Amino acid sequence: MSNDKMLTAERIARLREVMRRESLSAFIFTTSDPHQSEYTADHWKGREYISGFNGSAGTAVVTMKSAALWTDSRYFIAAAQQLEGTEFQLMKEKVEGTPTIAEWIGIACSDPQSPFEVGIDGMCSSVNEVKQMVSDLRHAGGFTLRTNFDPLRQIWINRPPLPDNPVEQFPVEWAGETCASKLSRIRQALHRQHADGMLMARLDDIAWTLNLRGADVHCNPVFVSYLLVTSTGATLYINKVKLPADIVVYLKAEGIKIDDYANVKEGLKRYFEQSILMDPDEVSYSLYNTLRQYNPGTRSAVQIIEAASPVPAMKAVKTPSEQAGFRQAMLADGLAMVELLRWLDEEADIEHETELSVSRKLEQLRAAQDGYRGPSFDTISAYAEHGAIVHYEPTAETDKPLQRRGLLLLDSGGHYTAGTTDITRTIALGPLTNEERRVYTLVLKGHLRLQNLCFPDGASGTQLDAVARSPLWAEGLNYLHGTGHGVGCRLCVHEGPHQIRMEWRPAPLHAGMTVTDEPGIYVEGRFGVRIENTLLVVNDDGKEGRFLRFEPLTLCPIDMRPVMPELLNDEERSWLSDYHERVFKELSPHLPLASRQWLRKVMN
Amino acid sequence: MSNDKMLTAERIARLREVMRRESLSAFIFTTSDPHQSEYTADHWKGREYISGFNGSAGTAVVTMKSAALWTDSRYFIAAAQQLEGTEFQLMKEKVEGTPTIAEWIGIACSDPQSPFEVGIDGMCSSVNEVKQMVSDLRHAGGFTLRTNFDPLRQIWINRPPLPDNPVEQFPVEWAGETCASKLSRIRQALHRQHADGMLMARLDDIAWTLNLRGADVHCNPVFVSYLLVTSTGATLYINKVKLPADIVVYLKAEGIKIDDYANVKEGLKRYFEQSILMDPDEVSYSLYNTLRQYNPGTRSAVQIIEAASPVPAMKAVKTPSEQAGFRQAMLADGLAMVELLRWLDEEADIEHETELSVSRKLEQLRAAQDGYRGPSFDTISAYAEHGAIVHYEPTAETDKPLQRRGLLLLDSGGHYTAGTTDITRTIALGPLTNEERRVYTLVLKGHLRLQNLCFPDGASGTQLDAVARSPLWAEGLNYLHGTGHGVGCRLCVHEGPHQIRMEWRPAPLHAGMTVTDEPGIYVEGRFGVRIENTLLVVNDDGKEGRFLRFEPLTLCPIDMRPVMPELLNDEERSWLSDYHERVFKELSPHLPLASRQWLRKVMN
Repeated sequence: MSNDKMLTAERIARLREVMRRESLSAFIFTTSDPHQSEYTADHWKGREYISGFNGSAGTAVVTMKSAALWTDSRYFIAAAQQLEGTEFQLMKEKVEGTPTIAEWIGIACSDPQSPFEVGIDGMCSSVNEVKQMVSDLRHAGGFTLRTNFDPLRQIWINRPPLPDNPVEQFPVEWAGETCASKLSRIRQALHRQHADGMLMARLDDIAWTLNLRGADVHCNPVFVSYLLVTSTGATLYINKVKLPADIVVYLKAEGIKIDDYANVKEGLKRYFEQSILMDPDEVSYSLYNTLRQYNPGTRSAVQIIEAASPVPAMKAVKTPSEQAGFRQAMLADGLAMVELLRWLDEEADIEHETELSVSRKLEQLRAAQDGYRGPSFDTISAYAEHGAIVHYEPTAETDKPLQRRGLLLLDSGGHYTAGTTDITRTIALGPLTNEERRVYTLVLKGHLRLQNLCFPDGASGTQLDAVARSPLWAEGLNYLHGTGHGVGCRLCVHEGPHQIRMEWRPAPLHAGMTVTDEPGIYVEGRFGVRIENTLLVVNDDGKEGRFLRFEPLTLCPIDMRPVMPELLNDEERSWLSDYHERVFKELSPHLPLASRQWLRKVMN
Repeated sequence: MSNDKMLTAERIARLREVMRRESLSAFIFTTSDPHQSEYTADHWKGREYISGFNGSAGTAVVTMKSAALWTDSRYFIAAAQQLEGTEFQLMKEKVEGTPTIAEWIGIACSDPQSPFEVGIDGMCSSVNEVKQMVSDLRHAGGFTLRTNFDPLRQIWINRPPLPDNPVEQFPVEWAGETCASKLSRIRQALHRQHADGMLMARLDDIAWTLNLRGADVHCNPVFVSYLLVTSTGATLYINKVKLPADIVVYLKAEGIKIDDYANVKEGLKRYFEQSILMDPDEVSYSLYNTLRQYNPGTRSAVQIIEAASPVPAMKAVKTPSEQAGFRQAMLADGLAMVELLRWLDEEADIEHETELSVSRKLEQLRAAQDGYRGPSFDTISAYAEHGAIVHYEPTAETDKPLQRRGLLLLDSGGHYTAGTTDITRTIALGPLTNEERRVYTLVLKGHLRLQNLCFPDGASGTQLDAVARSPLWAEGLNYLHGTGHGVGCRLCVHEGPHQIRMEWRPAPLHAGMTVTDEPGIYVEGRFGVRIENTLLVVNDDGKEGRFLRFEPLTLCPIDMRPVMPELLNDEERSWLSDYHERVFKELSPHLPLASRQWLRKVMN
């Protein structure tokens, strides 16, 4: 048994001791923090601590005699490797025959001697998650759910502390709207929902509202905090050491009170207005419960309005200043990408490079650009068959040397002063098979079909998703991930509320939103292709009624070498040629001569 | 004031007397029956009785001082006409600025003297409708909702009785599956949902399950009843006069008990098994409440499982026998349609015909076909600007004489022995404007884009909807109705659970389902175009993975005279030519010589 596996076994043993003492049949570890973040600070990586699995999505469950981990198709291969030799059984989500968490607990704990209580940390689970789990566990065998107990406090030795990195300004010149104006719009929206306040827990919503940025989560410029908005004021609950003097002055000037992060529960109880909005997908069950238990539901006390927060939809529509920030970021990012592509094509000794070395090279080239602030997510650099592992990230153990053939899938992005990028290019390193060329061309057709769609104002991403897939479906191909997501403005690279995907996402698309267009095809054991630009939703003028279209923000050539030209139609060819013309026009004044010449060469 | 308007005024006055006595601020009249039917027997047309508006969708609300009626865009014009001169104010659903019902009540009843109770008939509203209304009314001003009082019992003079038309067999040779087999599959599905029984209220689900048909609702071959399914038996609650002797024998042989329609509440209370499934979109609030109040929620009593009924998804997949019945119906229907189209083209004295006379002619031609059982819905025969009124049905007052120019939109369908049809053709009666031709061709392109889509097994209609719209969106055009719906097998012409529409309908598409493909464009004041075939979902063989495609069931030429050929691509032209070849091959052996020659002529 390796050290890692021994560690996992010891941790499970310590957990079971605590579970026995507390009469719990099972404990559920989710992948979140009290802010429902997609990526969390290390302090909250409890699921990774107990299971050893470090993917960005998954749920671990431990009973007295067994353990299992649920994750999605992106991580089936990585999770199988990481869980090997531990007690944890891998549960593949959305695969036929995989039990739900509650079903599995119902079977694993069916011994009539075992207690009827299951645990979950109510601080790290949303209201809706807990409500659903309560109902599922009841059906699965009459279990009840305890939410007020976190065993990690007792068993996690050397648990990383709460992050305390400094907060910085995101000036109004870049944001395009003052904090006061945003708060006023939020209060208007709350008023329309008959609420006179709300608890904001999502970290990027708080950063956006206050025109501040942080550094508490890897790749996510947010700061751990809560913001309680009332009809007349607002209180920021935050570890005060994170606030430099200028920020304290700024917050005071904006009328924002400051209180300790740990005092948010007290703050909620002190909240004596009529009704407070809590988004049940945003607020943790424990905080919701604090107010609910405090307020026994009599007409005179505070009423909790469970409804979607109005903030994500506001944040999603970028101001003209934010759009300018994006364009600046895309210019810098395009320059770095072109340098990388030229280097790969003309200069690199490919056989001495690896997935990781290319990833590092790209990071160096980005770092040399004006305003670069760091990666917006961990680069996916996946050569040949690694390209078929959708969320592959090379590590020292898996790193693969490149060859002068096949496809390198490179999905990366950066934060810049006032904008964020997300781009995928799939690059021919040399000769390709006909299958690689055909799949590449079909993915490109899917990308262009969505890129060139005109659609009514207010359409949802779910409605548009099939457009990118239809050229692939026609050939019997499909991909199981989403087609696109919003991109934050020097905020999280995955941003809601809109998404372009098969599942229902009702959030309407409006002019000013950013969204990615990233269809892909993954041929297991051989290669993967994904082509992604970040797009801006713009008005399609000159039509009766209100119609929208997409303008590409990303400025980087699409590799034309793998394309089978006979599969493209005139419209597609002419769009590609116009796009490359525009890329050349915008990037070339800033490129060194060699790169300018290279860009001119590959455009055609 | 006309007699109609006086009647409405008198009825409102009588209602208000009752409301005053019962201390109700407002009463809400929905358009449904205790079975959540789209079309109801006359007995339940209370909303029409009180408001005078006879559309198939709408909600009337009466307060002590005001009255309003909500309906959707299909009925804006008709409702405005029918409500004119009454107290009812028209509320246009989904139009910006239109208040919700609860918001309107909140304002209309804001007088602090007025009582805090609003009424609705809980027997004619589903569980989910009532729960939503309770929540909306609470937010709108703290109103409570009374559900156990139906004022129509006191004020409706000469209310039509419950229908008592005879029930007939739908033989297993046509159904392709015995009642016993269906009940066994339903019980398996219930078992998977941890329910050991269910209350079925939807009339077409009951007809399908029992392999019976009725005649209680205009155009809908259903019979008013409930079916209570337990783990070992089933009871049909029905007015026994409707059951001929052979049906009584048949039901007995199938082990189905028979009880009076009015006894369903008693039956629910006698239901002493562990858990019963009630679909909150199917079961009326009053019946749900009967069981809930009877069962105070202790662990030992019956548990209500609120979940979607498994029956619609089973009914939607047609057996090979049902598919054969559809094909037979489509053949007969195609013969009638070809006769009509030839008559319009070659024989009719168009200037002496009207919308209604064409509708009657079509009904005669259908009646002459083998196995015809009557219309599956009221024919929409809409000439010129009437075509722009989406749910226009000609009446003696509105009937429009035809001319040898412009477009006639004809949307109709029939029930035949073992299948049902739904078809729309838009027919050029003579010269057309360029706008008419362009819109016609774009609608045809939308129809074909969906018709020729290949998609993965299990995709939802919401995912596919945009495919039919994209050629229209590209030209700044759109339509606000759905693109397609399931068609019952000699059952309701609108059948779920799948639908192809903008709104979220998660029901997955599978091989064996029927669905219509009916995009349209409506140019107000000028003309409307809709082109509709009924399609069968079939496996798309020869692809890796499981993919589906659509096969047209409808056999009737599409008018090629309005087409602008330069707007069609090769694939579209070749599909049309193949389709017309197939229509000719299947219909011509059964057509008289003149019609055969006409069909050969218009095919090209």
